[in-house]
Amino acid sequence: MLIRDQARMAIERCRKLASFSEQAGRTTRTFLSSPMRDCHREIAAWVEPLGARVRIDAAGNFRALYPAADANAPRLLVGSHLDTVPDGGAFDGALGVVLGATLMENLEGKRLPFSIELLGFSEEEGVRFGVPFIGSRALVGRVDEDLLRRPDEHGISVRTAIERFGLHPSELPEARIESNVLGYVEFHIEQGPVLEELGLPLAVVDAIAGQSRLEFTFFGCANHAGTTPMNLRRDALAGAAEWIATVEQEGRRVPELVATVGAVEAKPGVSNVIAAEVRLTLDVRHRTDDVRKASVEILIRRAEQIAAYRRLSLRHEERLNQTSVAMDSLLISHAEEALRRAQCLPHRMVSGAGHDAMILAEAVASVMILLRTPGGISHSPEESVQPSDVAKAIEAGAHLLDVLASSPAFEHKETQNAYTRPDS
Amino acid sequence: MLIRDQARMAIERCRKLASFSEQAGRTTRTFLSSPMRDCHREIAAWVEPLGARVRIDAAGNFRALYPAADANAPRLLVGSHLDTVPDGGAFDGALGVVLGATLMENLEGKRLPFSIELLGFSEEEGVRFGVPFIGSRALVGRVDEDLLRRPDEHGISVRTAIERFGLHPSELPEARIESNVLGYVEFHIEQGPVLEELGLPLAVVDAIAGQSRLEFTFFGCANHAGTTPMNLRRDALAGAAEWIATVEQEGRRVPELVATVGAVEAKPGVSNVIAAEVRLTLDVRHRTDDVRKASVEILIRRAEQIAAYRRLSLRHEERLNQTSVAMDSLLISHAEEALRRAQCLPHRMVSGAGHDAMILAEAVASVMILLRTPGGISHSPEESVQPSDVAKAIEAGAHLLDVLASSPAFEHKETQNAYTRPDS
Repeated sequence: MLIRDQARMAIERCRKLASFSEQAGRTTRTFLSSPMRDCHREIAAWVEPLGARVRIDAAGNFRALYPAADANAPRLLVGSHLDTVPDGGAFDGALGVVLGATLMENLEGKRLPFSIELLGFSEEEGVRFGVPFIGSRALVGRVDEDLLRRPDEHGISVRTAIERFGLHPSELPEARIESNVLGYVEFHIEQGPVLEELGLPLAVVDAIAGQSRLEFTFFGCANHAGTTPMNLRRDALAGAAEWIATVEQEGRRVPELVATVGAVEAKPGVSNVIAAEVRLTLDVRHRTDDVRKASVEILIRRAEQIAAYRRLSLRHEERLNQTSVAMDSLLISHAEEALRRAQCLPHRMVSGAGHDAMILAEAVASVMILLRTPGGISHSPEESVQPSDVAKAIEAGAHLLDVLASSPAFEHKETQNAYTRPDS
Repeated sequence: MLIRDQARMAIERCRKLASFSEQAGRTTRTFLSSPMRDCHREIAAWVEPLGARVRIDAAGNFRALYPAADANAPRLLVGSHLDTVPDGGAFDGALGVVLGATLMENLEGKRLPFSIELLGFSEEEGVRFGVPFIGSRALVGRVDEDLLRRPDEHGISVRTAIERFGLHPSELPEARIESNVLGYVEFHIEQGPVLEELGLPLAVVDAIAGQSRLEFTFFGCANHAGTTPMNLRRDALAGAAEWIATVEQEGRRVPELVATVGAVEAKPGVSNVIAAEVRLTLDVRHRTDDVRKASVEILIRRAEQIAAYRRLSLRHEERLNQTSVAMDSLLISHAEEALRRAQCLPHRMVSGAGHDAMILAEAVASVMILLRTPGGISHSPEESVQPSDVAKAIEAGAHLLDVLASSPAFEHKETQNAYTRPDS
C-alpha cells in the first residue's frame, strides 16, 4: 500500500475510534467506559492478523505484542492513550495508537531484532477520577492503594471500576513493564501552533516541560466607585491587572517560558464598587526546572511589590510543582535520524503539555514525535491532522524501526538492554 | 440644650431608627416595608410637639410641615431618605432626616419668613424594585405608569405595594411639590474618604457627578497554556489587564475624574487554558459631562487599540449615561456662609454618589451638605459619624436658616419665589 493510502487509512481509523463514544454525536471516552471495549475489539482486528498477541491488562490498557525474530529479544513500546476529554477530537491519543498499528502492518510479517508492543493506554486525561495517567502509571507500578480507593463523581472507586470492566486489580503487577524494554516511542499531535508556524510536519520532543501552578489573592478595600478618589483607593483589581501584565512580560522575557493567568475572580464584582479581593491562577512551564522556579520567584516578588506600594495584601499558594522530564538522548538522536531520512527537518522542541511518555520515562528510555496540529486546535471536535503530515509520521516511524534494528545494541547480544536506563 | 447634647441625641435617634428593621440584629429597611411605619411614628413624635403637621404622602414619604409666620410664605424643604441597603448603616439617609427635625427643635417655636417641610423619603437605594429615588421622584411628578407596574422579586408591583401600605396611588399628584418652594437642603454622610483625608467636618456639594456605565468584552482564543508560545497567543485576559491599567491611568490623569473596573469575568476561566473571553464593567464619573464623555471615548479607543494589536476582538455597550446635576449657586453660597459662621472651612466638592437632591434639583433650587464619614465606610453596619461633626452640621444648619431668613428675598414680599428655578 502506498504511504499516502496508509495515511488516509490511519485517519479513517482515528475517525472510526472517535465514533466509539459515551455521547451520541460527540467523542467522549473516559477510563474503562463501555466504548473502550469497542476500541479494543477494533484495534485487535487490525493487529491480530499480523501475528500480534492481544491482551487487556488489569489497568484496562490495550497491549498487542508483535514478536521479534528471537524469543528473548528486547521489546520496543509504541503507543499513546485511548481515552478522550469530553467532546474531544479524533486524534489526541488515538493517532499514536493507530500509527503503532500501521508500523506493524508496514513490516509485512518481517521480524526485527526486537519485539514491538503496541500500547493503548486506558487513561491519560484525568477526566473520570481527576487524576491523569492511570494507564501509564500501571506500567511503572504507580497504581497504589490510594489511587485504587479514589472515587469518581458517582462514588465508584478505581478498584470497583476495574472489577466492573471484568478485570482483576490483583493482576496489576502483571501490567508492569519488564527489564527487557528497549524504549518507548509515542507519536502525538502537538496540540499547539508551533509546527504550523514553522511550516514543519514533525518534531522530536527532547523534554516535557516542568510545571508550576499557583494561586494568588490580592486583598484591597471595597469602596464606593463614585465617592473614592483615585489616590485614596486600595483597588485589588487594579493591582491584579498590573501583575497580570508582569506575568506576560516574564513569559516574553525568558526564552521558551510560558506563563499564563487563566482564571480571575473579583469580589464583590459589582460595577460601582472598587474590588476588595481578586483571586488569580498562575501557570508557568519551562524545560529547565531552575529557569521555571526563578521565574515563579520573580513573579511572586513582583506581586509582593505591587501589593506593597498599592497598600494591598497578598496571599499565594503553590498548587503544583512538577519537574521537567527529559527524553532519552540516544532515542532522540535516532528519532532525528528517522526524520531526516523521511526528508523532514529534525526540529527539536519541548512539550508544554504532559503526556504518557512523561510517566514511562521514569522507568524506560522514551521519546516522542509530535505532528503539526492545524490551528493548534485540540480537545475539540475541530481537532485535525493533515494527511501528508501523517504520511511523514508513518515514513519516519518506519525509518526509526530501521535505525533501531541496525543499532550497535544488536551487534552484541549481551548489551540488549543498552537503551534501558541504568536506574530502571 | 447644648449643641453637643443635641448632636449626641441626633446620633441616638439615628441608632433608634436603625433598630426598625426587616431583619433582627441588622438594619434593612426597604421601600414601604413594615418598619417604615415605626420610623414615621418615631419622627412624628419628635416634631408634632413643635407644631409640625405630619402626613405620609401617596409614595410613602414622611412629610412634616413646620409653619411660617405668614400662611402664604414659601417653603424650605429639608430631609433625606429613610430606606436602607440590606445590612446597612444607621446614618446613610436617616441622619439627614434627624438633622431636619433637630433644626425645627432648635427654633424653639420661633416662626421664620418661610415654612420648613421635613422630608423622609421612602425610597432612594433602589433595593426593592431595582429603581432608585422612587420617593423623591414622586415630588417632581416622575412616578409614572411604567414605574407603578414594576414588580419586586415577589411579583408585587409598586402600585400594589403602595396600596398594601394603606396608601392610594390616585393621590400621587398631591405628593408633588408646589411652586412656592424656596429650595431643598439635604444633609448626608459623605460615604467617601475625602473629608477625613482633608481633616474637615463638612463640605458643600456644588454638583452631583454625571455617570457613565459600560460593559466591555474582549474576545481572544482559548488555547493550551502549556503548548502555546507567548508570541502566538490571543490572550483576552492579558489584553483586558492592559486596559484595566489604562482605566486607572485615565482616572489619575484627569482631575476629579473617577474611573473604575469593578467586575471582571474570564472564560473558560481555567488555570491551564488561555482566556478566550473577558467581560469587564467600566464606571466613570465627573462633575462636567464633557470631561466624562471625553474620558469614556479615550477608554473606548484604548480598548480598540489594545484589541487590534493583540489580534483580539472587542464589544462594548453603554449601560448608563446620566448627566451631571449642578446644585443651586445661590444656595451654595448661603451654605458656604453658614459653614463659615460655624467656624468650618467652606470646602466645596462634587458628590460622586447619587442622592435625592439630584432628583429634586430638576424642579427646585437644591444644595447638599456632606458630613465626614470615618474610614469612608458606608452601606455597612460599621458606618459611623463623629459627634463633633454632627454638632458642626447642627450649627451650620441653624446658621443657614438665619442666612435664608435675612435674605433679600424676604425684604420684598412679591419676590418670595426668588429661589425657585425659572423652569420649575
